[in-house]
Amino acid sequence: MANKPLILITNDDSVNAPGIQHLINWMKDLGEVIVVAPDSPQSGKGHAITIDNAIFVHKIKRVDGVECYSCSGTPVDCVKLASRQILNRKPDLCVSGINHGSNSSINVIYSGTMSAAVEAGIEGIPSIGFSLCDYSWDADFSHLESYVKKIASEVLKKTPPKGTVLNVNFPKKSENNIRGIKVCRQAKANWEEKFDQRKTPSGKDYYWLTGEFVLHDLGEDTDEWALRNNYISIVPTQFDLTAYHAIPEINLWNFN
Amino acid sequence: MANKPLILITNDDSVNAPGIQHLINWMKDLGEVIVVAPDSPQSGKGHAITIDNAIFVHKIKRVDGVECYSCSGTPVDCVKLASRQILNRKPDLCVSGINHGSNSSINVIYSGTMSAAVEAGIEGIPSIGFSLCDYSWDADFSHLESYVKKIASEVLKKTPPKGTVLNVNFPKKSENNIRGIKVCRQAKANWEEKFDQRKTPSGKDYYWLTGEFVLHDLGEDTDEWALRNNYISIVPTQFDLTAYHAIPEINLWNFN
Repeated sequence: MANKPLILITNDDSVNAPGIQHLINWMKDLGEVIVVAPDSPQSGKGHAITIDNAIFVHKIKRVDGVECYSCSGTPVDCVKLASRQILNRKPDLCVSGINHGSNSSINVIYSGTMSAAVEAGIEGIPSIGFSLCDYSWDADFSHLESYVKKIASEVLKKTPPKGTVLNVNFPKKSENNIRGIKVCRQAKANWEEKFDQRKTPSGKDYYWLTGEFVLHDLGEDTDEWALRNNYISIVPTQFDLTAYHAIPEINLWNFN
Repeated sequence: MANKPLILITNDDSVNAPGIQHLINWMKDLGEVIVVAPDSPQSGKGHAITIDNAIFVHKIKRVDGVECYSCSGTPVDCVKLASRQILNRKPDLCVSGINHGSNSSINVIYSGTMSAAVEAGIEGIPSIGFSLCDYSWDADFSHLESYVKKIASEVLKKTPPKGTVLNVNFPKKSENNIRGIKVCRQAKANWEEKFDQRKTPSGKDYYWLTGEFVLHDLGEDTDEWALRNNYISIVPTQFDLTAYHAIPEINLWNFN
Protein backbone atom coordinates (compact mmCIF):
# COMPACT_ATOMS: atom_id res chain seq x y z
CA MET A 1 0.00 0.00 0.00
CA ALA A 2 1.50 3.35 -0.99
CA ASN A 3 0.04 5.34 1.91
CA LYS A 4 -0.16 3.96 5.40
CA PRO A 5 -3.78 3.20 6.29
CA LEU A 6 -5.48 5.91 8.32
CA ILE A 7 -6.91 4.55 11.57
CA LEU A 8 -9.44 6.52 13.62
CA ILE A 9 -9.49 5.56 17.31
CA THR A 10 -12.26 6.37 19.76
CA ASN A 11 -13.94 4.89 22.82
CA ASP A 12 -16.52 5.67 25.51
CA ASP A 13 -14.37 5.48 28.65
CA SER A 14 -12.69 8.81 27.73
CA VAL A 15 -9.45 9.77 26.09
CA ASN A 16 -7.62 9.14 29.39
CA ALA A 17 -8.71 5.51 29.85
CA PRO A 18 -6.01 2.82 29.93
CA GLY A 19 -7.92 0.76 27.34
CA ILE A 20 -7.59 3.41 24.62
CA GLN A 21 -3.91 3.96 25.44
CA HIS A 22 -3.20 0.30 24.65
CA LEU A 23 -5.19 0.56 21.44
CA ILE A 24 -3.25 3.66 20.35
CA ASN A 25 0.09 1.96 21.05
CA TRP A 26 -0.84 -1.16 19.12
CA MET A 27 -2.49 0.57 16.15
CA LYS A 28 0.63 2.69 15.54
CA ASP A 29 2.22 -0.49 14.17
CA LEU A 30 -0.54 -0.82 11.55
CA GLY A 31 -1.01 2.68 10.23
CA GLU A 32 -1.31 6.41 10.75
CA VAL A 33 -3.35 6.93 13.88
CA ILE A 34 -5.67 9.77 14.87
CA VAL A 35 -7.63 9.84 18.12
CA VAL A 36 -10.95 11.62 18.71
CA ALA A 37 -12.44 10.49 22.00
CA PRO A 38 -14.72 11.83 24.74
CA ASP A 39 -13.23 14.11 27.38
CA SER A 40 -15.16 12.28 30.13
CA PRO A 41 -16.59 8.78 30.64
CA GLN A 42 -19.59 8.10 28.39
CA SER A 43 -20.44 4.51 29.28
CA GLY A 44 -24.05 3.54 28.61
CA LYS A 45 -24.56 6.45 26.23
CA GLY A 46 -25.68 4.13 23.41
CA HIS A 47 -26.16 5.87 20.09
CA ALA A 48 -26.84 9.28 21.66
CA ILE A 49 -25.88 12.41 19.71
CA THR A 50 -25.65 15.98 20.97
CA ILE A 51 -28.25 18.10 19.22
CA ASP A 52 -29.29 20.35 22.09
CA ASN A 53 -25.91 21.57 23.23
CA ALA A 54 -22.63 23.01 21.98
CA ILE A 55 -19.75 20.58 21.39
CA PHE A 56 -16.22 21.53 22.42
CA VAL A 57 -13.07 19.95 21.02
CA HIS A 58 -9.52 20.26 22.33
CA LYS A 59 -6.29 19.16 20.72
CA ILE A 60 -4.19 17.17 23.19
CA LYS A 61 -0.40 17.08 23.08
CA ARG A 62 0.96 13.55 23.33
CA VAL A 63 4.61 12.66 23.86
CA ASP A 64 4.37 10.00 21.12
CA GLY A 65 3.26 12.62 18.57
CA VAL A 66 -0.08 10.94 17.83
CA GLU A 67 -2.71 13.48 16.74
CA CYS A 68 -5.31 13.43 19.50
CA TYR A 69 -8.51 15.35 20.24
CA SER A 70 -10.83 15.25 23.22
CA CYS A 71 -14.48 16.07 22.66
CA SER A 72 -17.22 17.13 25.05
CA GLY A 73 -19.81 15.06 23.19
CA THR A 74 -20.81 11.42 23.04
CA PRO A 75 -18.82 8.61 21.38
CA VAL A 76 -21.04 8.91 18.27
CA ASP A 77 -20.40 12.68 18.18
CA CYS A 78 -16.66 11.91 18.22
CA VAL A 79 -16.93 9.77 15.08
CA LYS A 80 -19.07 12.36 13.30
CA LEU A 81 -16.70 15.18 14.25
CA ALA A 82 -13.67 13.18 13.18
CA SER A 83 -15.02 12.19 9.80
CA ARG A 84 -16.78 15.46 8.89
CA GLN A 85 -14.63 18.12 10.56
CA ILE A 86 -11.20 16.95 11.68
CA LEU A 87 -10.00 14.40 9.10
CA ASN A 88 -9.22 15.40 5.55
CA ARG A 89 -9.61 11.88 4.17
CA LYS A 90 -11.86 8.95 4.98
CA PRO A 91 -10.28 6.56 7.50
CA ASP A 92 -9.46 3.05 6.31
CA LEU A 93 -10.46 1.69 9.70
CA CYS A 94 -12.18 2.85 12.88
CA VAL A 95 -11.39 1.05 16.13
CA SER A 96 -13.31 1.81 19.31
CA GLY A 97 -12.24 0.77 22.80
CA ILE A 98 -10.71 -1.14 24.32
CA ASN A 99 -13.75 -0.91 26.55
CA HIS A 100 -13.35 -1.57 30.25
CA GLY A 101 -16.20 -4.09 30.52
CA SER A 102 -18.19 -6.50 28.37
CA ASN A 103 -20.18 -5.42 25.34
CA SER A 104 -21.38 -8.90 24.50
CA SER A 105 -25.02 -9.92 24.12
CA ILE A 106 -27.63 -7.19 24.74
CA ASN A 107 -24.92 -4.87 26.12
CA VAL A 108 -24.13 -3.94 22.53
CA ILE A 109 -27.25 -1.78 22.45
CA TYR A 110 -26.34 0.35 25.50
CA SER A 111 -22.66 0.62 24.68
CA GLY A 112 -21.08 3.91 23.68
CA THR A 113 -18.02 1.98 22.47
CA MET A 114 -20.05 -0.16 20.10
CA SER A 115 -22.27 2.74 19.02
CA ALA A 116 -19.17 4.66 17.95
CA ALA A 117 -18.07 1.64 15.90
CA VAL A 118 -21.57 1.33 14.43
CA GLU A 119 -21.61 5.04 13.52
CA ALA A 120 -18.37 4.57 11.58
CA GLY A 121 -20.01 1.60 9.85
CA ILE A 122 -23.02 3.74 8.89
CA GLU A 123 -20.55 6.15 7.27
CA GLY A 124 -19.02 3.28 5.29
CA ILE A 125 -15.81 2.99 7.34
CA PRO A 126 -14.65 -0.57 8.18
CA SER A 127 -15.03 -0.68 11.91
CA ILE A 128 -14.42 -2.71 15.08
CA GLY A 129 -15.44 -2.30 18.71
CA PHE A 130 -13.07 -3.99 21.17
CA SER A 131 -14.09 -4.75 24.76
CA LEU A 132 -12.48 -6.62 27.64
CA CYS A 133 -14.73 -8.45 30.11
CA ASP A 134 -13.11 -6.67 33.04
CA TYR A 135 -14.66 -3.46 34.37
CA SER A 136 -11.62 -2.45 36.42
CA TRP A 137 -9.72 0.71 35.48
CA ASP A 138 -6.57 -1.30 36.32
CA ALA A 139 -7.56 -4.22 34.09
CA ASP A 140 -4.73 -6.28 32.58
CA PHE A 141 -4.80 -5.89 28.77
CA SER A 142 -1.47 -7.65 28.16
CA HIS A 143 -2.99 -10.84 26.72
CA LEU A 144 -4.77 -8.95 23.93
CA GLU A 145 -2.05 -7.29 21.87
CA SER A 146 -1.48 -9.99 19.23
CA TYR A 147 -5.23 -10.62 18.84
CA VAL A 148 -6.16 -6.95 18.52
CA LYS A 149 -3.47 -6.43 15.88
CA LYS A 150 -4.43 -9.59 13.97
CA ILE A 151 -8.14 -8.76 13.92
CA ALA A 152 -7.50 -5.15 12.89
CA SER A 153 -5.11 -6.32 10.15
CA GLU A 154 -7.70 -8.74 8.77
CA VAL A 155 -10.34 -6.01 8.69
CA LEU A 156 -7.92 -3.71 6.87
CA LYS A 157 -7.26 -6.47 4.33
CA LYS A 158 -10.74 -7.92 3.86
CA THR A 159 -13.26 -5.29 5.08
CA PRO A 160 -16.39 -6.67 6.78
CA PRO A 161 -19.47 -7.41 4.63
CA LYS A 162 -21.34 -4.19 3.76
CA GLY A 163 -23.55 -2.89 6.54
CA THR A 164 -21.72 -4.77 9.29
CA VAL A 165 -19.15 -3.89 11.94
CA LEU A 166 -17.36 -6.26 14.31
CA ASN A 167 -18.18 -6.51 18.01
CA VAL A 168 -15.10 -8.13 19.55
CA ASN A 169 -15.08 -9.15 23.22
CA PHE A 170 -12.12 -10.62 25.10
CA PRO A 171 -12.18 -12.84 28.19
CA LYS A 172 -10.69 -11.33 31.32
CA LYS A 173 -7.04 -12.21 31.93
CA SER A 174 -6.75 -15.48 33.83
CA GLU A 175 -4.21 -18.24 34.42
CA ASN A 176 -5.65 -20.07 31.39
CA ASN A 177 -4.61 -19.11 27.88
CA ILE A 178 -7.24 -17.83 25.47
CA ARG A 179 -8.45 -20.81 23.41
CA GLY A 180 -8.95 -18.90 20.16
CA ILE A 181 -11.54 -16.84 18.29
CA LYS A 182 -15.20 -17.71 17.67
CA VAL A 183 -17.45 -15.88 15.20
CA CYS A 184 -20.76 -15.82 17.06
CA ARG A 185 -24.27 -14.55 17.27
CA GLN A 186 -25.41 -12.15 20.01
CA ALA A 187 -26.76 -14.16 22.98
CA LYS A 188 -30.32 -13.45 24.13
CA ALA A 189 -30.26 -11.74 27.52
CA ASN A 190 -31.55 -8.72 29.36
CA TRP A 191 -30.84 -6.71 32.49
CA GLU A 192 -33.13 -7.00 35.49
CA GLU A 193 -32.78 -3.62 37.04
CA LYS A 194 -33.05 -2.84 40.68
CA PHE A 195 -33.43 0.84 41.47
CA ASP A 196 -31.56 1.81 44.62
CA GLN A 197 -33.87 4.39 46.23
CA ARG A 198 -32.25 7.10 48.38
CA LYS A 199 -33.09 10.51 49.80
CA THR A 200 -31.27 13.79 49.18
CA PRO A 201 -30.21 15.76 52.28
CA SER A 202 -33.39 17.83 51.79
CA GLY A 203 -35.61 14.73 51.71
CA LYS A 204 -36.27 14.26 47.98
CA ASP A 205 -36.35 10.70 46.64
CA TYR A 206 -33.89 9.74 43.96
CA TYR A 207 -32.69 6.52 42.35
CA TRP A 208 -29.51 4.83 41.17
CA LEU A 209 -29.82 2.37 38.34
CA THR A 210 -28.35 -1.01 39.24
CA GLY A 211 -29.14 -4.44 37.90
CA GLU A 212 -28.26 -7.98 37.09
CA PHE A 213 -27.45 -9.47 33.69
CA VAL A 214 -29.79 -12.39 32.99
CA LEU A 215 -28.82 -14.81 30.21
CA HIS A 216 -31.72 -16.64 28.50
CA ASP A 217 -29.66 -18.43 25.90
CA LEU A 218 -27.48 -21.51 26.35
CA GLY A 219 -26.55 -21.74 22.65
CA GLU A 220 -22.94 -22.72 22.02
CA ASP A 221 -22.89 -20.40 19.00
CA THR A 222 -23.29 -17.27 21.14
CA ASP A 223 -20.83 -14.64 22.31
CA GLU A 224 -21.64 -15.41 25.94
CA TRP A 225 -20.80 -19.09 25.51
CA ALA A 226 -17.54 -18.24 23.78
CA LEU A 227 -16.44 -15.79 26.48
CA ARG A 228 -17.43 -18.11 29.34
CA ASN A 229 -15.31 -20.80 27.68
CA ASN A 230 -12.29 -18.52 27.33
CA TYR A 231 -12.67 -17.78 23.62
CA ILE A 232 -12.63 -14.33 22.02
CA SER A 233 -16.07 -13.60 20.53
CA ILE A 234 -16.61 -11.75 17.27
CA VAL A 235 -20.21 -10.83 16.43
CA PRO A 236 -20.82 -9.21 13.04
CA THR A 237 -23.23 -6.45 14.02
CA GLN A 238 -25.62 -4.58 11.76
CA PHE A 239 -27.52 -1.31 11.79
CA ASP A 240 -30.34 -2.39 9.52
CA LEU A 241 -32.67 -3.22 12.42
CA THR A 242 -35.45 -4.60 10.19
CA ALA A 243 -36.79 -7.92 11.46
CA TYR A 244 -37.27 -9.29 7.93
CA HIS A 245 -38.71 -12.58 9.19
CA ALA A 246 -41.57 -10.67 10.86
CA ILE A 247 -42.77 -8.84 7.74
CA PRO A 248 -44.93 -11.69 6.29
CA GLU A 249 -46.62 -12.31 9.66
CA ILE A 250 -47.47 -8.65 10.23
CA ASN A 251 -48.73 -8.38 6.67
CA LEU A 252 -51.50 -10.80 7.72
CA TRP A 253 -52.71 -8.46 10.48
CA ASN A 254 -55.88 -6.48 9.96
CA PHE A 255 -55.23 -2.76 10.03
CA ASN A 256 -58.45 -1.73 8.29
CA MET B 1 -60.63 -9.67 28.75
CA ALA B 2 -61.48 -9.48 32.47
CA ASN B 3 -59.02 -6.72 33.31
CA LYS B 4 -58.44 -3.78 31.06
CA PRO B 5 -55.02 -4.01 29.40
CA LEU B 6 -52.31 -1.96 31.09
CA ILE B 7 -50.67 0.46 28.65
CA LEU B 8 -47.37 2.17 29.47
CA ILE B 9 -46.84 5.43 27.59
CA THR B 10 -43.51 7.18 27.16
CA ASN B 11 -41.68 9.34 24.60
CA ASP B 12 -38.52 11.39 24.11
CA ASP B 13 -39.97 14.86 23.54
CA SER B 14 -40.89 15.13 27.26
CA VAL B 15 -44.04 14.60 29.23
CA ASN B 16 -45.28 18.04 28.14
CA ALA B 17 -45.08 17.46 24.38
CA PRO B 18 -48.29 17.65 22.36
CA GLY B 19 -47.52 14.27 20.73
CA ILE B 20 -47.71 12.36 24.00
CA GLN B 21 -50.90 14.18 25.04
CA HIS B 22 -52.66 12.84 21.94
CA LEU B 23 -51.35 9.36 22.63
CA ILE B 24 -52.62 9.49 26.22
CA ASN B 25 -56.07 10.65 25.12
CA TRP B 26 -56.37 7.93 22.48
CA MET B 27 -54.95 5.06 24.57
CA LYS B 28 -57.48 5.73 27.35
CA ASP B 29 -60.07 4.17 25.03
CA LEU B 30 -58.07 0.93 24.86
CA GLY B 31 -57.01 0.29 28.44
CA GLU B 32 -55.67 1.51 31.75
CA VAL B 33 -52.98 4.05 31.01
CA ILE B 34 -49.86 4.98 32.96
CA VAL B 35 -47.34 7.56 31.77
CA VAL B 36 -43.62 7.65 32.64
CA ALA B 37 -41.84 10.13 30.40
CA PRO B 38 -38.79 12.42 30.50
CA ASP B 39 -39.10 15.78 32.24
CA SER B 40 -37.20 17.50 29.40
CA PRO B 41 -36.63 16.88 25.69
CA GLN B 42 -34.42 13.84 25.04
CA SER B 43 -34.34 13.70 21.25
CA GLY B 44 -31.32 11.94 19.80
CA LYS B 45 -30.56 10.17 23.06
CA GLY B 46 -30.65 6.75 21.40
CA HIS B 47 -30.43 3.84 23.82
CA ALA B 48 -28.59 5.88 26.49
CA ILE B 49 -29.09 4.94 30.14
CA THR B 50 -28.15 6.95 33.23
CA ILE B 51 -25.50 5.07 35.17
CA ASP B 52 -23.36 7.99 36.32
CA ASN B 53 -26.02 10.18 37.85
CA ALA B 54 -29.00 10.15 40.19
CA ILE B 55 -32.47 9.82 38.63
CA PHE B 56 -35.36 11.89 39.96
CA VAL B 57 -39.03 11.04 39.46
CA HIS B 58 -42.04 13.25 40.12
CA LYS B 59 -45.70 12.32 40.15
CA ILE B 60 -47.71 14.76 38.04
CA LYS B 61 -51.35 15.60 38.74
CA ARG B 62 -53.48 15.45 35.62
CA VAL B 63 -57.06 16.67 35.35
CA ASP B 64 -58.05 13.47 33.53
CA GLY B 65 -56.86 11.35 36.46
CA VAL B 66 -54.25 9.43 34.40
CA GLU B 67 -51.33 8.28 36.56
CA CYS B 68 -48.34 10.21 35.26
CA TYR B 69 -44.67 10.50 36.24
CA SER B 70 -41.91 12.70 34.90
CA CYS B 71 -38.34 11.40 35.09
CA SER B 72 -35.01 13.20 34.90
CA GLY B 73 -33.47 10.32 32.94
CA THR B 74 -33.46 9.16 29.34
CA PRO B 75 -36.39 7.53 27.52
CA VAL B 76 -34.85 4.09 28.18
CA ASP B 77 -34.51 4.95 31.89
CA CYS B 78 -38.23 5.79 31.90
CA VAL B 79 -39.15 2.31 30.66
CA LYS B 80 -36.81 0.62 33.14
CA LEU B 81 -38.15 2.71 36.03
CA ALA B 82 -41.73 2.06 35.03
CA SER B 83 -41.39 -1.68 34.72
CA ARG B 84 -39.06 -2.31 37.68
CA GLN B 85 -40.09 0.37 40.18
CA ILE B 86 -43.41 2.05 39.47
CA LEU B 87 -45.71 -0.60 37.99
CA ASN B 88 -46.90 -3.55 40.02
CA ARG B 89 -47.71 -5.67 36.97
CA LYS B 90 -46.16 -6.11 33.55
CA PRO B 91 -47.77 -3.83 30.95
CA ASP B 92 -49.69 -5.47 28.12
CA LEU B 93 -48.41 -2.81 25.76
CA CYS B 94 -45.86 -0.01 25.65
CA VAL B 95 -46.42 2.88 23.26
CA SER B 96 -43.77 5.55 22.76
CA GLY B 97 -44.37 8.89 21.07
CA ILE B 98 -45.98 10.32 19.17
CA ASN B 99 -42.61 11.70 18.18
CA HIS B 100 -42.42 15.17 16.67
CA GLY B 101 -40.33 14.15 13.65
CA SER B 102 -39.48 11.11 11.54
CA ASN B 103 -37.91 7.97 12.97
CA SER B 104 -37.84 6.14 9.67
CA SER B 105 -34.74 4.65 8.07
CA ILE B 106 -31.44 5.13 9.97
CA ASN B 107 -33.14 7.62 12.33
CA VAL B 108 -34.36 4.62 14.32
CA ILE B 109 -30.87 4.20 15.77
CA TYR B 110 -30.58 7.76 17.13
CA SER B 111 -34.16 8.00 18.34
CA GLY B 112 -35.01 8.12 22.03
CA THR B 113 -38.64 7.37 21.15
CA MET B 114 -37.74 4.16 19.34
CA SER B 115 -35.10 3.18 21.92
CA ALA B 116 -37.76 3.36 24.64
CA ALA B 117 -39.98 1.09 22.55
CA VAL B 118 -37.05 -1.26 21.94
CA GLU B 119 -36.24 -1.35 25.66
CA ALA B 120 -39.82 -2.46 26.39
CA GLY B 121 -39.38 -5.14 23.72
CA ILE B 122 -36.17 -6.36 25.38
CA GLU B 123 -38.20 -6.75 28.58
CA GLY B 124 -40.78 -8.83 26.71
CA ILE B 125 -43.48 -6.14 26.52
CA PRO B 126 -45.34 -5.79 23.17
CA SER B 127 -44.26 -2.39 22.01
CA ILE B 128 -44.73 0.32 19.39
CA GLY B 129 -42.94 3.57 18.62
CA PHE B 130 -45.12 6.16 16.84
CA SER B 131 -43.63 9.12 14.98
CA LEU B 132 -45.05 11.85 12.78
CA CYS B 133 -42.91 13.22 9.95
CA ASP B 134 -43.40 16.77 11.18
CA TYR B 135 -40.84 18.30 13.54
CA SER B 136 -43.06 21.22 14.56
CA TRP B 137 -44.23 21.49 18.17
CA ASP B 138 -47.56 22.66 16.69
CA ALA B 139 -47.81 19.71 14.31
CA ASP B 140 -51.31 18.56 13.34
CA PHE B 141 -51.91 15.04 14.70
CA SER B 142 -55.63 14.95 13.87
CA HIS B 143 -55.28 12.54 10.93
CA LEU B 144 -53.67 9.83 13.09
CA GLU B 145 -56.24 8.93 15.74
CA SER B 146 -57.99 6.04 14.00
CA TYR B 147 -54.70 4.57 12.76
CA VAL B 148 -52.94 4.79 16.13
CA LYS B 149 -55.87 3.09 17.84
CA LYS B 150 -56.15 0.40 15.17
CA ILE B 151 -52.43 -0.44 15.23
CA ALA B 152 -52.32 -0.50 19.04
CA SER B 153 -55.43 -2.71 19.13
CA GLU B 154 -53.88 -5.18 16.68
CA VAL B 155 -50.68 -5.35 18.75
CA LEU B 156 -52.76 -5.98 21.91
CA LYS B 157 -54.59 -8.79 20.10
CA LYS B 158 -51.77 -10.42 18.14
CA THR B 159 -48.46 -9.34 19.80
CA PRO B 160 -45.52 -8.82 17.44
CA PRO B 161 -43.22 -11.80 16.69
CA LYS B 162 -40.81 -12.44 19.58
CA GLY B 163 -37.84 -10.09 19.65
CA THR B 164 -39.50 -7.43 17.51
CA VAL B 165 -41.18 -4.08 18.14
CA LEU B 166 -42.99 -1.89 15.66
CA ASN B 167 -41.54 1.34 14.27
CA VAL B 168 -44.58 3.24 12.95
CA ASN B 169 -44.13 6.50 11.03
CA PHE B 170 -46.92 8.71 9.74
CA PRO B 171 -46.83 11.15 6.84
CA LYS B 172 -47.22 14.80 7.70
CA LYS B 173 -50.78 16.10 7.45
CA SER B 174 -51.54 17.29 3.92
CA GLU B 175 -54.52 17.92 1.67
CA ASN B 176 -54.24 14.31 0.45
CA ASN B 177 -55.66 11.47 2.47
CA ILE B 178 -53.32 8.78 3.81
CA ARG B 179 -53.35 5.90 1.30
CA GLY B 180 -53.03 3.12 3.87
CA ILE B 181 -50.42 1.13 5.77
CA LYS B 182 -47.30 -0.57 4.38
CA VAL B 183 -45.20 -3.08 6.32
CA CYS B 184 -41.68 -2.17 5.23
CA ARG B 185 -37.98 -2.58 5.66
CA GLN B 186 -35.74 0.21 6.97
CA ALA B 187 -34.38 2.24 4.03
CA LYS B 188 -30.61 2.57 3.69
CA ALA B 189 -29.55 6.14 4.42
CA ASN B 190 -27.20 8.18 6.53
CA TRP B 191 -26.73 11.72 7.73
CA GLU B 192 -24.06 13.91 6.22
CA GLU B 193 -23.20 16.17 9.06
CA LYS B 194 -22.03 19.73 8.81
CA PHE B 195 -20.57 21.14 11.99
CA ASP B 196 -21.46 24.77 12.45
CA GLN B 197 -18.29 26.26 13.99
CA ARG B 198 -18.70 29.27 16.30
CA LYS B 199 -16.77 31.12 18.97
CA THR B 200 -17.77 31.69 22.59
CA PRO B 201 -17.64 35.31 23.82
CA SER B 202 -14.22 34.46 25.28
CA GLY B 203 -12.93 33.17 21.93
CA LYS B 204 -13.17 29.39 22.36
CA ASP B 205 -14.26 27.33 19.34
CA TYR B 206 -17.37 25.23 19.63
CA TYR B 207 -19.63 23.33 17.25
CA TRP B 208 -23.29 22.68 16.61
CA LEU B 209 -24.20 19.40 14.97
CA THR B 210 -26.28 19.93 11.84
CA GLY B 211 -26.68 17.76 8.80
CA GLU B 212 -28.57 16.47 5.84
CA PHE B 213 -30.40 13.16 5.49
CA VAL B 214 -29.08 11.28 2.45
CA LEU B 215 -31.18 8.42 1.09
CA HIS B 216 -29.24 5.68 -0.74
CA ASP B 217 -32.17 3.37 -1.35
CA LEU B 218 -34.92 3.71 -3.93
CA GLY B 219 -36.59 0.41 -2.99
CA GLU B 220 -40.39 0.51 -3.03
CA ASP B 221 -40.44 -1.84 -0.03
CA THR B 222 -38.83 0.75 2.28
CA ASP B 223 -40.28 3.02 4.94
CA GLU B 224 -38.98 6.08 3.09
CA TRP B 225 -40.79 5.11 -0.10
CA ALA B 226 -44.01 4.49 1.82
CA LEU B 227 -43.88 7.84 3.63
CA ARG B 228 -42.98 9.80 0.50
CA ASN B 229 -46.00 8.20 -1.18
CA ASN B 230 -48.35 9.13 1.66
CA TYR B 231 -48.54 5.67 3.26
CA ILE B 232 -48.01 4.90 6.95
CA SER B 233 -44.86 2.78 7.35
CA ILE B 234 -44.53 -0.06 9.85
CA VAL B 235 -41.06 -1.58 10.20
CA PRO B 236 -40.73 -4.58 12.51
CA THR B 237 -37.55 -3.68 14.37
CA GLN B 238 -35.25 -6.04 16.26
CA PHE B 239 -32.62 -5.82 18.98
CA ASP B 240 -30.68 -8.91 17.97
CA LEU B 241 -28.11 -6.96 15.96
CA THR B 242 -26.28 -10.06 14.69
CA ALA B 243 -25.61 -9.89 10.95
CA TYR B 244 -26.22 -13.64 10.49
CA HIS B 245 -25.44 -13.49 6.77
CA ALA B 246 -21.92 -12.25 7.57
CA ILE B 247 -20.93 -15.13 9.86
CA PRO B 248 -19.90 -17.64 7.14
CA GLU B 249 -17.79 -15.03 5.34
CA ILE B 250 -15.94 -13.93 8.47
CA ASN B 251 -15.38 -17.56 9.39
CA LEU B 252 -13.19 -17.78 6.27
CA TRP B 253 -10.88 -15.02 7.52
CA ASN B 254 -7.47 -15.87 8.90
CA PHE B 255 -7.13 -14.86 12.54
CA ASN B 256 -4.15 -17.10 13.31
